[in-house]
Amino acid sequence: MPDLHELIRQLRKDNDSKIVLLVSDGLGGLPLEPGGKTELETANTPNLDALAQRSVLGMSIPVLPGITPGSGPGHLGLFGYDPLEFYIGRGVLEALGIDFELGPNDVAIRGNFCTLDDKGQITDRRAGRIASEIGARLCEKLDQIELSGVEVFVRPVKEYRLVVVLRGEGLGGEVNDTDPQATGVPPLDPIARDEASQRTAELLKEFLRQAREILREDAPANFLTLRGIAKRPAIPTYEELYGLKAAAIAVYPMYRGLARLVGMDVLDAGTNLSEQIDRLGAVWSEYDFFFVHFKYTDSTGEDGDFAKKVQKIEELDAAIPRITALKPDVLIVTGDHSTPCKLRSHSWHPVPVLLAADTCRFDGSEAFGEAQCRCGGLGQFEAKYLMLYALAHAGRLEKYGA
Amino acid sequence: MPDLHELIRQLRKDNDSKIVLLVSDGLGGLPLEPGGKTELETANTPNLDALAQRSVLGMSIPVLPGITPGSGPGHLGLFGYDPLEFYIGRGVLEALGIDFELGPNDVAIRGNFCTLDDKGQITDRRAGRIASEIGARLCEKLDQIELSGVEVFVRPVKEYRLVVVLRGEGLGGEVNDTDPQATGVPPLDPIARDEASQRTAELLKEFLRQAREILREDAPANFLTLRGIAKRPAIPTYEELYGLKAAAIAVYPMYRGLARLVGMDVLDAGTNLSEQIDRLGAVWSEYDFFFVHFKYTDSTGEDGDFAKKVQKIEELDAAIPRITALKPDVLIVTGDHSTPCKLRSHSWHPVPVLLAADTCRFDGSEAFGEAQCRCGGLGQFEAKYLMLYALAHAGRLEKYGA
Repeated sequence: MPDLHELIRQLRKDNDSKIVLLVSDGLGGLPLEPGGKTELETANTPNLDALAQRSVLGMSIPVLPGITPGSGPGHLGLFGYDPLEFYIGRGVLEALGIDFELGPNDVAIRGNFCTLDDKGQITDRRAGRIASEIGARLCEKLDQIELSGVEVFVRPVKEYRLVVVLRGEGLGGEVNDTDPQATGVPPLDPIARDEASQRTAELLKEFLRQAREILREDAPANFLTLRGIAKRPAIPTYEELYGLKAAAIAVYPMYRGLARLVGMDVLDAGTNLSEQIDRLGAVWSEYDFFFVHFKYTDSTGEDGDFAKKVQKIEELDAAIPRITALKPDVLIVTGDHSTPCKLRSHSWHPVPVLLAADTCRFDGSEAFGEAQCRCGGLGQFEAKYLMLYALAHAGRLEKYGA
Repeated sequence: MPDLHELIRQLRKDNDSKIVLLVSDGLGGLPLEPGGKTELETANTPNLDALAQRSVLGMSIPVLPGITPGSGPGHLGLFGYDPLEFYIGRGVLEALGIDFELGPNDVAIRGNFCTLDDKGQITDRRAGRIASEIGARLCEKLDQIELSGVEVFVRPVKEYRLVVVLRGEGLGGEVNDTDPQATGVPPLDPIARDEASQRTAELLKEFLRQAREILREDAPANFLTLRGIAKRPAIPTYEELYGLKAAAIAVYPMYRGLARLVGMDVLDAGTNLSEQIDRLGAVWSEYDFFFVHFKYTDSTGEDGDFAKKVQKIEELDAAIPRITALKPDVLIVTGDHSTPCKLRSHSWHPVPVLLAADTCRFDGSEAFGEAQCRCGGLGQFEAKYLMLYALAHAGRLEKYGA
């Protein structure tokens, strides 16, 4: 039985259609009270509502019912990769999040500066939350470390957080964290979980030995722990899988990194939605598929700021006419997960989906919101199928069987 | 974990219930404009609407979201066989389509007469679209070919199209097409893709050698190419799987063939729906399950003739009282896929389903149409689960576990 990706490879066909995937991060929400409205339903969205009237709506389940996704799985699902099959390790996500260009031979690691006492036991797992400038300076020192046969990169993230990357042939990524998740005990040794990762563990041991030496005088940041040690997943690109030349127009590094992981060209996106759409128009003729990412519906949700999330949705709405003016064959507006202000966090609630195309079965929706999406023609479906809908509505899939 | 079929075998039980599956081919449609109605919604269907009021409705996804099925996968799904697991090769479907009774040891092949120049290169892949009578006469000549250890059948389909069947023990079906899909080049040799098909490839090579000799003087049809070489899938019958004695009442050969593939008795169906229902009544006491196929909602959809498809749906509606008069325990009305007039082709859009049974959870539907089915009690589900609903509503499935 062919799996989903084999099936797509068998059936895909090329044409001149243009597909836009507009991801409003954390779009889905919750009413604050029974009978109330969600953030999206509260927002005044005349453009999305008009679009809904010539669309088909639905609800997307990011991973599985009840499962709350992080940004990585949330986006992989939207991009058509089963997030349970393609796992992105924490180190990889952290590296993507600082625009580090990870190669297939790289092992990426999230590091935390920590404080050791003179017995070598951890007294502070976050090194007193040192200032970002101090972290950056210490990373420069660690970046000088040399290990035999591999390249070493050490990059600051923020405050006490950093990224370490080992680049070299044949390095496995299955190595345990060295953070003991406790104070009053020494850091753990890096232990390989498989044969292929023995050398990685040895190299990290040597890296940590040198780091301890280098940071000796830098208390409270006189050592570091390593976490989320991982290689990037072996993932087919948009070009290989769908035959789509794809562009990512995202402001935030992590989303740029996720797009890069699936082989999208990551374009200069400016600093806000208006500049992103300038870019979209400028490169319209050069690509088949455009991923446009809007961050602020997630961050306002995490802040629990209902009014602000509503306002951000209205900003998104205001940008819609400039996108529809480009006449995409398929325009999808959705989120990678819900981030209800009521919960101040990502959640498992299904995510509103709007798919506008001449080939869709208009479902009589009058507006874009959770209530309408719940009764929409796409029903509830796992996010990994969204790209099938995108391709189908764009005329990019052949019939299966005769 | 038991697969779907194992589970059914474990749980099925016999009783005297009667199940009717009325397949209106390509039933699902599209509104021509936002806010408009589909073909089914436009049609005046008082009988189906009355039936909907004592039914549960839903939407069936033939294969997977976004996947457009051919007739083979579309019907296999309705019959309860995962169309991704049970694949019907093109040669098999072509043989079924001319009512050829394929056995489990048969390799079926679709042939195209073609024209070769004196260098042996193809100049016309369809032999000038010769008349059907000429094709039939040439097939009679080729049917005389003898190959050692196997039977050979050559049957005309239409114009330049024919079917070749090799019948013999131990023949594999994994052989490449000989049609190079181009002119100005010679036909390809039949190449086996696995060990078990080496002999098939050798036999076909000899078949082609003799055919070239026989057709030497028959330009423009002085040779043929072979395509879609395949054996029928190893598929459990309705009797084995469900314990159902099943009858197919279908006018068109392909659907008769698909029914035969799953072990239904293929009955003389006459030439139109009225005669099909005469037959249904006549054999009512002899079977448990009845597959009745109505073709014209698909063909009018393929023609893009909205008014005509509406009219054909109304013809179907008019036949409903004669079916309900037989008092089936379960009556299902659905399609194998959508064929929207707007697209003039099969499509991926989910297909309206109506299931009438005393045991169903009536869902308050007032009419049979896409809008009502979208909100129906069965929700959206993969077609392969339809037979589970049929069996359940007929009281033919035991409880799972204690």
